[in-house]
Amino acid sequence: MSNSTTIDSRQFRAALGSFTTGVTVVTTRSVAGEDVGLTANSFNSVSLDPPMVLWSLDRRSSTAAAFMAAEHFAVHILAADQEQVSNQFAARGVDRFAGLAVERGHGDVPLIAGCSARFECRTSYRHDGGDHVIFVGEVVAFDSFGRAPLVFHGGNYGLLMKKKAQDVEDTRSSFGDEWLGFLLGRAYYQMLMPLRAEVQRQGLDDIHYRILSALSTGEGRSVTELSRLVEFSGHRVVDEHFATLAERELIVVDGEQVRFTEAGRRYAIELMAAGKSAEADAAGELDFNEARLLKLLLKRVIRATGQGLPEHWRKENIWRDNNVWGAAGGATEGSST
Amino acid sequence: MSNSTTIDSRQFRAALGSFTTGVTVVTTRSVAGEDVGLTANSFNSVSLDPPMVLWSLDRRSSTAAAFMAAEHFAVHILAADQEQVSNQFAARGVDRFAGLAVERGHGDVPLIAGCSARFECRTSYRHDGGDHVIFVGEVVAFDSFGRAPLVFHGGNYGLLMKKKAQDVEDTRSSFGDEWLGFLLGRAYYQMLMPLRAEVQRQGLDDIHYRILSALSTGEGRSVTELSRLVEFSGHRVVDEHFATLAERELIVVDGEQVRFTEAGRRYAIELMAAGKSAEADAAGELDFNEARLLKLLLKRVIRATGQGLPEHWRKENIWRDNNVWGAAGGATEGSST
Repeated sequence: MSNSTTIDSRQFRAALGSFTTGVTVVTTRSVAGEDVGLTANSFNSVSLDPPMVLWSLDRRSSTAAAFMAAEHFAVHILAADQEQVSNQFAARGVDRFAGLAVERGHGDVPLIAGCSARFECRTSYRHDGGDHVIFVGEVVAFDSFGRAPLVFHGGNYGLLMKKKAQDVEDTRSSFGDEWLGFLLGRAYYQMLMPLRAEVQRQGLDDIHYRILSALSTGEGRSVTELSRLVEFSGHRVVDEHFATLAERELIVVDGEQVRFTEAGRRYAIELMAAGKSAEADAAGELDFNEARLLKLLLKRVIRATGQGLPEHWRKENIWRDNNVWGAAGGATEGSST
Repeated sequence: MSNSTTIDSRQFRAALGSFTTGVTVVTTRSVAGEDVGLTANSFNSVSLDPPMVLWSLDRRSSTAAAFMAAEHFAVHILAADQEQVSNQFAARGVDRFAGLAVERGHGDVPLIAGCSARFECRTSYRHDGGDHVIFVGEVVAFDSFGRAPLVFHGGNYGLLMKKKAQDVEDTRSSFGDEWLGFLLGRAYYQMLMPLRAEVQRQGLDDIHYRILSALSTGEGRSVTELSRLVEFSGHRVVDEHFATLAERELIVVDGEQVRFTEAGRRYAIELMAAGKSAEADAAGELDFNEARLLKLLLKRVIRATGQGLPEHWRKENIWRDNNVWGAAGGATEGSST
């Protein structure tokens, strides 16, 4: 497997991709007064005293002349939500600063906003590095904004979870409380607790709220449809459940068809707000990036496990944007794919 | 916020920490024939033709003399499960190679195993970089092992999820199928489907398997305890459920106390195996690292949402390593913290 005698450039590039990096945009102002910038992940810290950073640039780059002549440059470490900025500064034949608010830093260098950290530098060295030039800059000013980072690995963007001391794991075991099913179930039921408490205050129980939830995905569903959706969560639905909701004047059952009353619709909206608040609580120990991560990983689990769903449920996309609870949704097609 | 006139070294270091990196161990062999190595995250690619990489080293490092004299060095990009290796090569006063199988590369440089990728280099340049030296090496051989990477950010290790084209997200919305409760519930119920199917083949249903699951966390529980645990998942338990399990000779109900029969215990073990297999399926689109990530994030949700649990359940840690299903576990204390 060792690639010794001749280095295959494609394989070499792939091996380099094993090294995870942040993503930066490096900017300068050309002698002609033009703003120049590019996306680079070849950034790194070098020296603390004096404070210095480095990055390297392909000698054939269209921006090379500007940086070779520049006394100053700025390095922006991009934040997790700046994928678009990263792509824009890697694109050819476009105005890379289009749509961005530009401030001026040392040497009139263009500074862009919204990043995770920013270093303004005076060029100290331009070192040889094969087909690249290594720029070493002394940091004359810097800003740190504490935003979650954009990450690059293996030719793709990635999402990062920062480990905390409380994050205890036992990678050897997948039974007991390390079993994925346990963790999913517990997280789910705990997250639902405030919603359940709210429903119980109204004298209703889990099955009732699951019926209301299923109904809020589309009015006019039949009793049979709603029961099937709720039964996906392992609850057996009987006529009495619908009768209770009708007595409480939350729904009207018209033959097989079920619809909300005005009060029922208002109540569903209240529960939606409670669901939103439950999500905020559940994500209390997650930063913006980690919350995204969790959702993306759950969607992968949903993709990987959806094959056993009844054909009828998979085909019609009955899950709409206005549902309140997760239970009934199990019966629908691949989340937002 | 911009730190211009004087650079505070602690703040500068923190700002540099915004840049995510992989972690490498760089090794060489000293003129005296000693193996030398250190942990560094200042690695980066430089040139494709000729193939070159760089890293920088503090001039005052105990390893500086060896690297200044070395014709060859090797850079190991560490894998996600090599935190210990990273720590060992950053420690002082220890044999950093202790316990590691060492092979010999170009120039007799020590090579360590288990990493994500490895580059053997001939020193091309030792460039000035303030209080550091920038080593540029021409890559004479490399290996790529495809292992998930160890990642460093803000002074801590992190875990990385690699984005795929199928990973669609809508960060603006948290309703409907972007609501965390929906995703948790759907992932949970879908993951349970094979287990549920297995139980149904035996003529049992969800509540029965939740009772068996709760029982497998500790024999001799009372009917009341088991019912409470199961009811956390929103299911109402009645005497008939216990009666059915007793008729099927899976449990014995002795007054209030419940225990497994031999057949019941065997069945619980079968279900545990099915649970393990369901986990493997659910993690089908996750690599080792991503599976760890998902579990750690779920534990954070569990930590963030556990406050509402009944005091009685939180105090006793009834959840043991031999449970089969997630449902009942919701009633226990912080997972493995």
